[in-house]
Amino acid sequence: MKKIYLDYAATTPTDPEVIKAMQPYFFDKFGNPSSIHSFGQEAKKAIEDARERVAAFLGAKPEEIIFTSGGTESNNFAIEGAAYALEKKGNHIITTAIEHHAIIEPCKFLEKKGFKVTFVGVDKYGLVDPDEIKKAITDKTILISVMHANNEIGTIQPIKEIGRIAKERGIYFHTDAVQTVGHIPVNVDELNIDLLSLSAHKFYGPKGVGALYVRKGTRIERFLHGGDQERNKRASTHNTPGIVGLGKAVELCRDKMEEESRFQIELRDKLIKGIQDKIAHVYLNGHSTQRLPNNANISIEYIEGESLILNLDMEGIACSTGSACTSSSLEPSHVLLAIGRSPEIAHGSLRFSLGRFTQESDIEFTLEVLPKITQKLRLMSPLYKER
Amino acid sequence: MKKIYLDYAATTPTDPEVIKAMQPYFFDKFGNPSSIHSFGQEAKKAIEDARERVAAFLGAKPEEIIFTSGGTESNNFAIEGAAYALEKKGNHIITTAIEHHAIIEPCKFLEKKGFKVTFVGVDKYGLVDPDEIKKAITDKTILISVMHANNEIGTIQPIKEIGRIAKERGIYFHTDAVQTVGHIPVNVDELNIDLLSLSAHKFYGPKGVGALYVRKGTRIERFLHGGDQERNKRASTHNTPGIVGLGKAVELCRDKMEEESRFQIELRDKLIKGIQDKIAHVYLNGHSTQRLPNNANISIEYIEGESLILNLDMEGIACSTGSACTSSSLEPSHVLLAIGRSPEIAHGSLRFSLGRFTQESDIEFTLEVLPKITQKLRLMSPLYKER
Repeated sequence: MKKIYLDYAATTPTDPEVIKAMQPYFFDKFGNPSSIHSFGQEAKKAIEDARERVAAFLGAKPEEIIFTSGGTESNNFAIEGAAYALEKKGNHIITTAIEHHAIIEPCKFLEKKGFKVTFVGVDKYGLVDPDEIKKAITDKTILISVMHANNEIGTIQPIKEIGRIAKERGIYFHTDAVQTVGHIPVNVDELNIDLLSLSAHKFYGPKGVGALYVRKGTRIERFLHGGDQERNKRASTHNTPGIVGLGKAVELCRDKMEEESRFQIELRDKLIKGIQDKIAHVYLNGHSTQRLPNNANISIEYIEGESLILNLDMEGIACSTGSACTSSSLEPSHVLLAIGRSPEIAHGSLRFSLGRFTQESDIEFTLEVLPKITQKLRLMSPLYKER
Repeated sequence: MKKIYLDYAATTPTDPEVIKAMQPYFFDKFGNPSSIHSFGQEAKKAIEDARERVAAFLGAKPEEIIFTSGGTESNNFAIEGAAYALEKKGNHIITTAIEHHAIIEPCKFLEKKGFKVTFVGVDKYGLVDPDEIKKAITDKTILISVMHANNEIGTIQPIKEIGRIAKERGIYFHTDAVQTVGHIPVNVDELNIDLLSLSAHKFYGPKGVGALYVRKGTRIERFLHGGDQERNKRASTHNTPGIVGLGKAVELCRDKMEEESRFQIELRDKLIKGIQDKIAHVYLNGHSTQRLPNNANISIEYIEGESLILNLDMEGIACSTGSACTSSSLEPSHVLLAIGRSPEIAHGSLRFSLGRFTQESDIEFTLEVLPKITQKLRLMSPLYKER
């Protein structure tokens, strides 16, 4: 059976060119980049090359890039690091109701440590209103964190404007760009960003590596305490192959992103339109144009999303109900509830996310299979019969 | 020029068999282990297999293993996680003066957050006296953390006895076993351990992955907040290739460790004796028998360790002055100061650490080259002339 992967937002395969670039750093050039001998210096050079590539891709300086173990660490680092560094100045953080759990949970952790957090709501498309952010600011506000694009419904936020507000008020602005880096243009100066999280495995790099951009002069407490790596900001032996892979992944996206996103928008819109045409009682979640090129999130009424996933999986099609990170939870998506979907409709949601290796035939096959499965499941659904 | 690597304590090359085991998980089996579709489930199975191997190797249960990004994260997690989980019970932590910075620094961070830390000293061999630990206990003590073996001087601590004391008093006992797992036997029950840190790249696994053992029932606050991975204890997308590599590395050590350590002890003792025979004014740091099979740490009077490293490097020999993690620091090693070496002698120290690919000829060549370099450097040293 042909396998069709439409869950690129959960994770991407590591590009073969990335794997090739990483390869020498496992055995041949394996030194600890902190070692002063030639084994170490060779590894260090590879890391600094990767740092330059990542920085250039974001319009940043190399010394503003801190390598981490991934998006979750970058987000925890940004939130806790900024909060602890500024706790004498204030204890108020502003974020949104639709952030990834890797933002919401560290915020809740900080609430237990005496910080106050405002979770600003969103409109029915999942858009944050910059005025709402402005209104939430108090003289104790030290940090605003708004994701660049939502991982479930793909809505792209007005980051530039929110960043401008933060800048005017002298408040640090962090964005979780885990879903956007490598997919749409991200420039830290244009978008007025002080702190930015990214994760390699979301754009064809390896799992277990990411980065935090920290604008020069931004105060941040170290997150991992120990050795003096990363300019004393993040202890731990460098993951050389991973960092080299991240650098290569960035390079590939720099060259391919524009063309890839154009093609993905085409396929995405074909998929959305196809589902809307072929299946009744469906709703697109998120904004029709202010959305990630590769994201289609759809609620299909009268069906459990999990049943859909499992039935699609049996046909070789992989997609998800929302965030993979909370897939063991039975709660409806906090993002879909925040845009006003009922718990019942939220439970019947599917996220398709396209990527580098998606072909038009994958979308066509999905449009063939999904209506059949939907019909089959609806015929078994008591809710559908009672409607 | 033949390259001789004698810095295995800083990092090891990833074993070719480990690389081979990791390979399929970059592109072919790349799913997010949290995804419920078949791509995800295939990756999840690989992770659970690795977890079983790691657990079995330590005499633990699979559900007691939490995968992390490495030794530093495991140590930070153990210290901060236990402290925050128990802060209502007490605020006192006991550790030693010779821990790795990945223990000392999170302890210092916690001091700023209202915790009290006692740093127990060691004797001239670097040994901790269990009675000193006992004396340091107060009714506020919630955690004792003592490294299994020191990363610089190789001294193996009386962990079993310290663990017994902690157990009797109902205090959590953590050990940083980054230098021992894969090198000498480690059994969490025999050694009375509640929490244990390990790092894959110290025993021929990949960089960027490690684990924290958490005995069932031990309370610990999550370190990375976000998704529900690792039984809700450590958020972040699993680093599947890394975790698979860790599992394979453990399997290789299980089969090879005994023979390897026997051979390394032989070479290590040949190296130590050779240096003592051929060079005057040298001191072995650490204990003569209670030491890691692969560690030889020697102070060579009247010379700067860094000059030795650089001169050895020019001859193709890689070793270190101490911890790679603080190699950019100009301070003398806190470990050597703690065992009573003067700052001058501490500055003239070399750590040779042997490993899987070390041959007898490597040691012989080192014993040829080191005395010549020593003589050359001493002739340039004003201190040597004035002695």
